[in-house]
Amino acid sequence: MNQDTLPLELRKKIRSGLFTGNTSGYSQGFVQGNLCVLPVDWAHDFLQFCQLNPKPCPLVGMSSNPGDYHIPSLGIDLDIRSDIPSYRIFEHGQLKQELNDVTDYWRDDLVTFVLGCSFSFEEALIADGLEIRNVTEGVNVPMYRTNIDCVRAGRFSGTMVVSMRPMLAADAIRAVQICTRFPSVHGAPIHFGNPHLIGVQDISSPDFGDAVTIKENEVPVFWACGVTPQVALEQAKPPFCITHSPGAMLVTDLPNSRLSVL
Amino acid sequence: MNQDTLPLELRKKIRSGLFTGNTSGYSQGFVQGNLCVLPVDWAHDFLQFCQLNPKPCPLVGMSSNPGDYHIPSLGIDLDIRSDIPSYRIFEHGQLKQELNDVTDYWRDDLVTFVLGCSFSFEEALIADGLEIRNVTEGVNVPMYRTNIDCVRAGRFSGTMVVSMRPMLAADAIRAVQICTRFPSVHGAPIHFGNPHLIGVQDISSPDFGDAVTIKENEVPVFWACGVTPQVALEQAKPPFCITHSPGAMLVTDLPNSRLSVL
Repeated sequence: MNQDTLPLELRKKIRSGLFTGNTSGYSQGFVQGNLCVLPVDWAHDFLQFCQLNPKPCPLVGMSSNPGDYHIPSLGIDLDIRSDIPSYRIFEHGQLKQELNDVTDYWRDDLVTFVLGCSFSFEEALIADGLEIRNVTEGVNVPMYRTNIDCVRAGRFSGTMVVSMRPMLAADAIRAVQICTRFPSVHGAPIHFGNPHLIGVQDISSPDFGDAVTIKENEVPVFWACGVTPQVALEQAKPPFCITHSPGAMLVTDLPNSRLSVL
Repeated sequence: MNQDTLPLELRKKIRSGLFTGNTSGYSQGFVQGNLCVLPVDWAHDFLQFCQLNPKPCPLVGMSSNPGDYHIPSLGIDLDIRSDIPSYRIFEHGQLKQELNDVTDYWRDDLVTFVLGCSFSFEEALIADGLEIRNVTEGVNVPMYRTNIDCVRAGRFSGTMVVSMRPMLAADAIRAVQICTRFPSVHGAPIHFGNPHLIGVQDISSPDFGDAVTIKENEVPVFWACGVTPQVALEQAKPPFCITHSPGAMLVTDLPNSRLSVL
């Protein structure tokens, strides 16, 4: 399939089972989002957790009412139950199933949250001429657990997970400028340089994703990461929860530029 | 004298000889500028040098016609010949005199340039809660010659001079965001971290200004510096040139906020 496929067409192929892979690189120029679906009695705590921790948990959309599986602001004819290539169903914090359609598991009490992801800012950085090492090396971005506490909200708490991209200092400064314009896809980096200062012991062994080369004179630059809410979900252990599978995102109709505040 | 003295009143005191010291800390909230006055046959090259090197040489004003000693856009009743506490007169690149009034040396062919200075962005950083070490320690900011070439313009060339402020990484990221809003006072930093990468051999021995403490876990953050054009002037050796004396700036009527582009 052509990588330039527009989001609506891509979602239709996903819905019909013709596309079940990772969405990275598809429908370039459009926002892709992390999915989190929770019962309504857990939704308030999660919404507050996002509100209090906007850098790792930047909300780009949510359903209006429990049971809704449409989010018109994110896409025409979007059906949240079938338009993502792969889902994970958790019960009490345990992964129970991975499947391509959750229509049969949908309930009237479910609330959907869609969080921004780093694809959007990586695209902006690359468009500006910066090199993104995980893209160049064709691997997943390296991600690390840190010692930075998120702000607790009800039953949700945990430490922040960060993604890392190595850069020369001048490029890191430029990346701060560009990413500052995109607060709903994690915004500016939260740290650069010495990984120990945020509790990352071994930069060559990421907790999630893949290690990347850090060249001479480069510094690691760290962004708040959308895996953070997943870690909070693991700890909170809601009785029921649906997320996307890593890399298989919700492709929305929102142009990335629409997330820019400047 | 009260440090809150408004610029016009401060300039009147300066003009009458009642104030001859450094302007740092006076008329807070208002733009202070570096002065460079050149004969008209050197003005084009210098203007082009500023245009091509806007980070070290950010123009905030210039006189409209040769011989003009008023710059209405920078201040009411401003007389560039007498309203700066201390001037330096150079001939062929050599410092000839330091004096408090250059009215007697004024010529019909002189063009005045006023360049932004770091006082404006330091004020914005402090207002945001960041610590500026040279302010805390009550010394001049440390400045270093680098190996970064400026873009040549006619007879003007040279390497960039940078100022340095040590910060924790998170504060440095915030400083990038704040300073990006102020392109006419040097804008975002140009480097952080390893000083050798920009040709600074010994961070404890600045080429201009004073050394400051770099605490554990802090990184040096480097900004393009307004001493750069002075170094270019030393090399170009124009037959006649007037500058301010270091620290004795032109205090303008422009609020610092007026230099913010966002």
